[in-house]
Amino acid sequence: MSSTFTGQLAAFAISDTRPNSAALKMAQLSALDWLACGIAGVTEPVAQILRAQALAEAGAAQATLFGGTAVPARMAALANGTISHALDYDDTHFAHIGHPSVAVFSAAFALGQLQGRSVSQIIEAALFGMELSIRLGVWLGRSHYQMGFHQTATAGAFGATAASGRLLGLTPGQMEMALGLCATRAAGLKAQFGTMGKPYNAGLAATAGVEVAQLVAAGFEANPEALEGALGFGGTHHGEGNRDAALQDLGRVWLCEEISHKFHACCHGLHAALEAARSLDLAAPEIASLTVRTHPRWMTVCNQTAPETGLGAKFSYRTVLALQALGKDTARLDSYSAALCRDPRLVGLRDLIHVQADESLTETQAYVTLVRRDGRRLEASHDLQTPVAYELRQERLMGKVQALIGAERSAALWAMLQGSGSAADIAAHF
Amino acid sequence: MSSTFTGQLAAFAISDTRPNSAALKMAQLSALDWLACGIAGVTEPVAQILRAQALAEAGAAQATLFGGTAVPARMAALANGTISHALDYDDTHFAHIGHPSVAVFSAAFALGQLQGRSVSQIIEAALFGMELSIRLGVWLGRSHYQMGFHQTATAGAFGATAASGRLLGLTPGQMEMALGLCATRAAGLKAQFGTMGKPYNAGLAATAGVEVAQLVAAGFEANPEALEGALGFGGTHHGEGNRDAALQDLGRVWLCEEISHKFHACCHGLHAALEAARSLDLAAPEIASLTVRTHPRWMTVCNQTAPETGLGAKFSYRTVLALQALGKDTARLDSYSAALCRDPRLVGLRDLIHVQADESLTETQAYVTLVRRDGRRLEASHDLQTPVAYELRQERLMGKVQALIGAERSAALWAMLQGSGSAADIAAHF
Repeated sequence: MSSTFTGQLAAFAISDTRPNSAALKMAQLSALDWLACGIAGVTEPVAQILRAQALAEAGAAQATLFGGTAVPARMAALANGTISHALDYDDTHFAHIGHPSVAVFSAAFALGQLQGRSVSQIIEAALFGMELSIRLGVWLGRSHYQMGFHQTATAGAFGATAASGRLLGLTPGQMEMALGLCATRAAGLKAQFGTMGKPYNAGLAATAGVEVAQLVAAGFEANPEALEGALGFGGTHHGEGNRDAALQDLGRVWLCEEISHKFHACCHGLHAALEAARSLDLAAPEIASLTVRTHPRWMTVCNQTAPETGLGAKFSYRTVLALQALGKDTARLDSYSAALCRDPRLVGLRDLIHVQADESLTETQAYVTLVRRDGRRLEASHDLQTPVAYELRQERLMGKVQALIGAERSAALWAMLQGSGSAADIAAHF
Repeated sequence: MSSTFTGQLAAFAISDTRPNSAALKMAQLSALDWLACGIAGVTEPVAQILRAQALAEAGAAQATLFGGTAVPARMAALANGTISHALDYDDTHFAHIGHPSVAVFSAAFALGQLQGRSVSQIIEAALFGMELSIRLGVWLGRSHYQMGFHQTATAGAFGATAASGRLLGLTPGQMEMALGLCATRAAGLKAQFGTMGKPYNAGLAATAGVEVAQLVAAGFEANPEALEGALGFGGTHHGEGNRDAALQDLGRVWLCEEISHKFHACCHGLHAALEAARSLDLAAPEIASLTVRTHPRWMTVCNQTAPETGLGAKFSYRTVLALQALGKDTARLDSYSAALCRDPRLVGLRDLIHVQADESLTETQAYVTLVRRDGRRLEASHDLQTPVAYELRQERLMGKVQALIGAERSAALWAMLQGSGSAADIAAHF
């Protein structure tokens, strides 16, 4: 085994290490979450543009696009990576500083389908890939992100490479070269946030992984030290080079266990408040006032006071909490509509909700204080970083997935993800 | 017209400005040079790997690969960009710090063929693209290159975008968005030098240009300020931001007129010495001694004293000068062989040749001093930056192209590049 940083990552990516059960179960949940985001994301305009490009190019029927039709795996990864991030509703990992599943699953399902792999092989490859992209995110660190790089795209490309290379059966030396070749291909800027370029960045990472792994499997020779070496990706891309932290307990501890899933179809800054209020079991008629305290950072991000559009509602504490109190499912995309923004019941309720910045909180914490009409006062708080028990997470996630793609398709996909289906079986539901 | 940096580049890229005749003629020569490098490059291992990938993916017959068979334009650009840089025999621009034609012509010919454009439209679009990539190279500056970025790939991607967007008839606003989208896609590290990753970087630039221009033409919306804005490509990629120099006389002065072509199939560091010696009209039997003075930098790059392989010969002053004196054509790929390295006439001649470092020279200069057997002493010098008259350049280039792809194909391609053929006519010779 090579002792270089890339050498250790490559050895991990192709190792026989048996992932622990909690990590594997998390990867199954993330696969379900990714599938739902992709299937539901197909109607987004950026999804239609990528699909049209893929259909015009056509080619070998290797891997299925969300929305149907099989195209070359490299193209399917580009399109599906973009489509599954279009709603910005997919999972997150705070140490990765990014969304771990979109790049990796888009690559792994595309290559897995091409190679006729089983679902369990794909999930295992994706778990190794996600773990590697999180480790890469730790290695690149906050300086890389702060300078302007979109870690979902950059660290994500290396994760997609690892998953792809594992499925292709690369040797250790080939895996090192694939990671090295990825270093000349990985890209993605935060400057695209707020545009179609953001989900495209995820697609770029997915297709980069498929492309470099396929080329290296075919005999392509690249510099295996282009990640950390002189003039490598880390140095050129403002990486911190946190090598020890990135490699700590690699193969024994799975950072993937700390993946967090979105249970509300709105800005992440609103989620802690929604979770806190949820625990109070709000019912609109009983509310005299509801006060939210949140980290000051969110006040300029998601505190629109009286939005008039569905998109605006997704960035408004007052609106999403009023929706929740009215019994609307905040996991559903169609709960955020212009019609609901104008609903007199929602408008009346919204005016009872107050938002305050509180510097003592972290960005993942929120407090809510409810004063009921009977005079009782209730308080609750939530921190998004609090671990969620598997059963509860699975139940919440299934609720979200059902809201996105319906109960029947959710049940079928979940059974296949836990069972012995093939990639093609899953793709039949795209 | 937008007054941003990107706005001015975009306006130039789609403008009706009529390029001056010298620039257009240079673009015709570079097109011929690019075609010869691509057609001759097909047998390289990296070319075979990219062709195999393209043939396995197949798809719509939009643009022809070097070596034949039409595939989607996006893929043709990736493969042809890689293939045409595989020999490292294509043109150079010192202000660009890169090879201007490989990314841009690979994109422009692929899209031009898809759209049924004439050769003259493609050459014009490529000229605008090359000019923009040179300007981008000036803007990014030496800091970007020194830090580790391969400007052929990074600046080249923006040039490929400009040429592609011009052929697709993008509006000014779309061209700005295409350049902005390219900012999240452009990548390429010098860490790949010496591996197949180097030519691949050129392919990445070509396909990036085709891809982002096609997506924007289909309605994709991106941040039009992702090049120079906050968190943009310049800041994240160690650019110097030489805005005034980059925009100086844009549309009036064509930096493309300063493109330099390689006339010898060996390391660029040897070319000034070969040109200087060439002017002495060496004949082996008359040589008592030949002394070369060159910039010290080259001593560790291309001063192998007694190489035994064809590749080694390409990095050896003594060997290439001996080849030239023996009447071998240093423009031909097969002049650099293990057999010639062992030829007693060459070995004997090589020992009469001496190489000295001279700090007073620039990297593009060389001096040679010949002492003949009759006692006469002759001196000559050459600077690669000296302008070459069009007729002489055309004659030298035609000699090179004939050495690469034969007289008949050279003549046919040159006639079409100057005439009224279509992209498909040219592609029939791939």
